[in-house]
Amino acid sequence: MSQPVQALLFDVFGTVVDWREGVARDAAAFLRRRPAARQDAYAFADAWRALYSPAMEAVRAGRRPFTRLDQLHRENLEATLPAFGVDPASAPEDELQWLNRAWHRLDPWPDSVAGLARLKAGHIIATLSNGNTSLLLNMAKYAGLPWDAILGAEAAQAYKPMPQAYLRTAELLDLPPERICLVAAHNGDLAAARRCGFKTAFIMRPREFGPEQRTDLAAEQDWDWVARDLVELAGILGC
Amino acid sequence: MSQPVQALLFDVFGTVVDWREGVARDAAAFLRRRPAARQDAYAFADAWRALYSPAMEAVRAGRRPFTRLDQLHRENLEATLPAFGVDPASAPEDELQWLNRAWHRLDPWPDSVAGLARLKAGHIIATLSNGNTSLLLNMAKYAGLPWDAILGAEAAQAYKPMPQAYLRTAELLDLPPERICLVAAHNGDLAAARRCGFKTAFIMRPREFGPEQRTDLAAEQDWDWVARDLVELAGILGC
Repeated sequence: MSQPVQALLFDVFGTVVDWREGVARDAAAFLRRRPAARQDAYAFADAWRALYSPAMEAVRAGRRPFTRLDQLHRENLEATLPAFGVDPASAPEDELQWLNRAWHRLDPWPDSVAGLARLKAGHIIATLSNGNTSLLLNMAKYAGLPWDAILGAEAAQAYKPMPQAYLRTAELLDLPPERICLVAAHNGDLAAARRCGFKTAFIMRPREFGPEQRTDLAAEQDWDWVARDLVELAGILGC
Repeated sequence: MSQPVQALLFDVFGTVVDWREGVARDAAAFLRRRPAARQDAYAFADAWRALYSPAMEAVRAGRRPFTRLDQLHRENLEATLPAFGVDPASAPEDELQWLNRAWHRLDPWPDSVAGLARLKAGHIIATLSNGNTSLLLNMAKYAGLPWDAILGAEAAQAYKPMPQAYLRTAELLDLPPERICLVAAHNGDLAAARRCGFKTAFIMRPREFGPEQRTDLAAEQDWDWVARDLVELAGILGC
């Protein structure tokens, strides 16, 4: 390798935090207050998350202006509730806001905080997530994630895997892409980063989508680094 | 006060770090390698800094597109060197780049790191500086400043004291202005933030411009809080 990596940028949902457990936990509390609703919080989390990529696609395709993820999540929440027997118009606004911010209150995987602390000693560590700035910042305070900076879709005004999401982030860091490594549990995200010249590190998160997960169980390209978790990555990188 | 402050945003140059000593230190090293140059590193720092505001004014007035501070500093450096007997065209590019990045290597005031650590426990702490993202990030790594996020002119695409610099930052935080407090050693910065609805905290830095400082020696309005340094501010805010 010519020059060492100076910045490690992290996908967050699934790579650093367990969105499915966190969303299901808060959805369960919301549904329990409505005994007539369908009481399946994991199915709720999965259904809500299933609308995530299509909602961003409208922005990526230019059909709507850049819209922060909190707003997309809110629209997707209202679209998800009826199938669980809840009329969004009947739910108090403060409860909807609270549930929508479940994405701000996600717990880290058991290795994340320790791994990030070690990686931070030798690198800039920052988010490169589709989450908006305030979502990622509130999550960092909640979960104790020691980011040096909060970067990603909102700062770049482009959603991954659009190349602008990676390249504008590199520009903000004032680093050439080859001095940056994307750390992610998703092969598609890494492939897009590699096309922009980033180094790549794959983290295995085989339970991100629950026990039945079928995707991203293994590295699908010869990524620069592959690790089971962030503590192992720190060891591999000599931190 | 109606609602407690949730985010403390900091002016950085002068408020958190001592730019004059840091720039003079590196300018001295640069000038010493050129015995024919005028060996007055403090005058060099002051002359370089004197071009800071006029350079941003061209952006604020719309005479040039938003240009990051590293670039403005570089232009100002080349404009400063001749008066000290140095032809910028004769200086090696790597030495000019090194000197220009003196602004990335500024030491904190003695109270800054301890004060920020205490303030961070109860608040979001972030920059709201005219420095560009990579400058502030490199400085944070160098000086051990524990920011939760790097915000400011580059993220907002507007230089203080333009209202957009404050209001777009509030938007990124998704907080109403009254839940945000600007912490600064400069009355003008605080006045602009207050016009945007921010709370305000004045920090006394009577030596920022050296022993002859005449400006910003005292609070010029009834700012919400006034403190001698960041540790005192943490005490006042009960952190």
